[in-house]
Amino acid sequence: MTQTPKRAFILEEGPREGFQIEKGPIPTARKIELIDALADTGLRQIQIVSFVDPRRVPGMADAEAVVAGIAPRPGVLYTGLWLNERGFERARATGRLDMRGTIVAGASSTFLKRNQNRTIEEQFEAQRALVARYKALGVPVTRGGVMAAFGCNDEGAAEPARVVALVGEILAIARDHDVTLDYVSFADTMGWATPLSVKRLIGAAQDAFPHMEWALHLHDTRGLGLANAYAGLEMGVARFDAAVAGLGGCPFAGNAGAAGNVCTEDLVFMCEEMGIETGVDLDKLIACALLAEEIVGHPLPGAVKIGGSLARLRAAMRSA
Amino acid sequence: MTQTPKRAFILEEGPREGFQIEKGPIPTARKIELIDALADTGLRQIQIVSFVDPRRVPGMADAEAVVAGIAPRPGVLYTGLWLNERGFERARATGRLDMRGTIVAGASSTFLKRNQNRTIEEQFEAQRALVARYKALGVPVTRGGVMAAFGCNDEGAAEPARVVALVGEILAIARDHDVTLDYVSFADTMGWATPLSVKRLIGAAQDAFPHMEWALHLHDTRGLGLANAYAGLEMGVARFDAAVAGLGGCPFAGNAGAAGNVCTEDLVFMCEEMGIETGVDLDKLIACALLAEEIVGHPLPGAVKIGGSLARLRAAMRSA
Repeated sequence: MTQTPKRAFILEEGPREGFQIEKGPIPTARKIELIDALADTGLRQIQIVSFVDPRRVPGMADAEAVVAGIAPRPGVLYTGLWLNERGFERARATGRLDMRGTIVAGASSTFLKRNQNRTIEEQFEAQRALVARYKALGVPVTRGGVMAAFGCNDEGAAEPARVVALVGEILAIARDHDVTLDYVSFADTMGWATPLSVKRLIGAAQDAFPHMEWALHLHDTRGLGLANAYAGLEMGVARFDAAVAGLGGCPFAGNAGAAGNVCTEDLVFMCEEMGIETGVDLDKLIACALLAEEIVGHPLPGAVKIGGSLARLRAAMRSA
Repeated sequence: MTQTPKRAFILEEGPREGFQIEKGPIPTARKIELIDALADTGLRQIQIVSFVDPRRVPGMADAEAVVAGIAPRPGVLYTGLWLNERGFERARATGRLDMRGTIVAGASSTFLKRNQNRTIEEQFEAQRALVARYKALGVPVTRGGVMAAFGCNDEGAAEPARVVALVGEILAIARDHDVTLDYVSFADTMGWATPLSVKRLIGAAQDAFPHMEWALHLHDTRGLGLANAYAGLEMGVARFDAAVAGLGGCPFAGNAGAAGNVCTEDLVFMCEEMGIETGVDLDKLIACALLAEEIVGHPLPGAVKIGGSLARLRAAMRSA
């Protein structure tokens, strides 16, 4: 029986997830303002931009300018996302990002075709080429990832056995290139996960690869984001991706307007209230969430930024 | 070790929680329209109004007219809320409600004073008087309830031992009047619960009173509503209060604008996707949530009404 972890590590993806999907345009300076504020909360890693085709994702056309404009804070890892070698080279050219390679698989061939225009086989081929490139450049390869690991709007629920087999292929690529991954992340890209399916998939993965560490990238498309995170914590998962204020959204057919990633400050609140340390200052993070809302100019989904932290109420009681 | 239940019973409180707090005014006919639509979803109990002071809660001034206007559906229990004998007599006078008595305690004396202007002792005295009245009239007394059972903005976290002691007092009142409660409900009135505190309180209550059944009335003030419901399900709790679309809100100082009850359709979605039957037609319930939103004239918090049900996507896959 696994135990709820004592510490949780949260990878903040709000700037990337959010500014990628907002109609905008959001001024570059405001993106930088939010990133610098987030770096002051105790978050240890922030994914700040993606290097993708600006014709498809105009909100990320200024990725290089954002990276150039931040005031890096010692101890914070600033990372970017890319889907192919072209994006990787753009990220590397900035000279300011923490470069780490990921080996990514997709549990749904329909999704993979749509999102990256590749078959599952072509995706693995591309990953092998990328890993070879990372190795040649001395870029550490630290993370594996399975997209749509719980289900897909076109193919339905993902079978844990099939997802675990994909993890096996990811680990084989790592082994073939003599790299050791720190962890493998399961992404609930289209909001199919439930607490039960989180437990089943994590349990199956733990059975198959008992020495691996696992992470969850959860979306709140149907409101279950935090319940799914809690189920993950119960299985011993200690790594989560999240987005401040619930920045981001869901670009997939049938979910237009739905919520994006699980909200960072709500997740931090849940962890801290249960005695799981995050290292994050919740009040500072709530201030970031309110700033994010002001920057995008419309309400964002997070709850704690409205309901308020309990620490604040406890302090008021002590001083009463 | 308790087991996740095979069926969950959801008490719909949206019309009462929601129309009580909306600035409105909401036309009586529209309240009735929502109640009649909810009765057609498979929900088995709907709390449709409260009988409270119309000067304090103007949104419930038309409670009698709402009760008179609904088209009762066989098999659905229509209930009301009251806090004192005057409210009870108003409910009884309608002649159209399912009358059931509750024995209610408050875990916070500050909250009790503010909400009902009574000390804890006065509250128990009032409960004894009410139960005597219920007995004299042949009204069944079926439910116990503890308000602010997880914490209070004025007094902080509620100790499980203290809440369990209050349950003991509730059961003593029941025993003294020779009534047997079906269950005791814990209300997270001000959004202090976490999945961990839900498990601790339910566990302590189960240890103390192993033959009693438990219910949860959860608020989503800080986003943990569904995570807390999941923790309850894991402890074997099968009864939940909820509000369609997340109707309602939080009238307490420091939480203005925060979300209200856990959202019914999101809870139904979570249960059904985990194989826990609710008897509710999710698509019909989502239609009710959209109707509720139209009636109140502003966005309501539920997620599934935007993200969409998975059943709909699965049906599209089958027909493709």
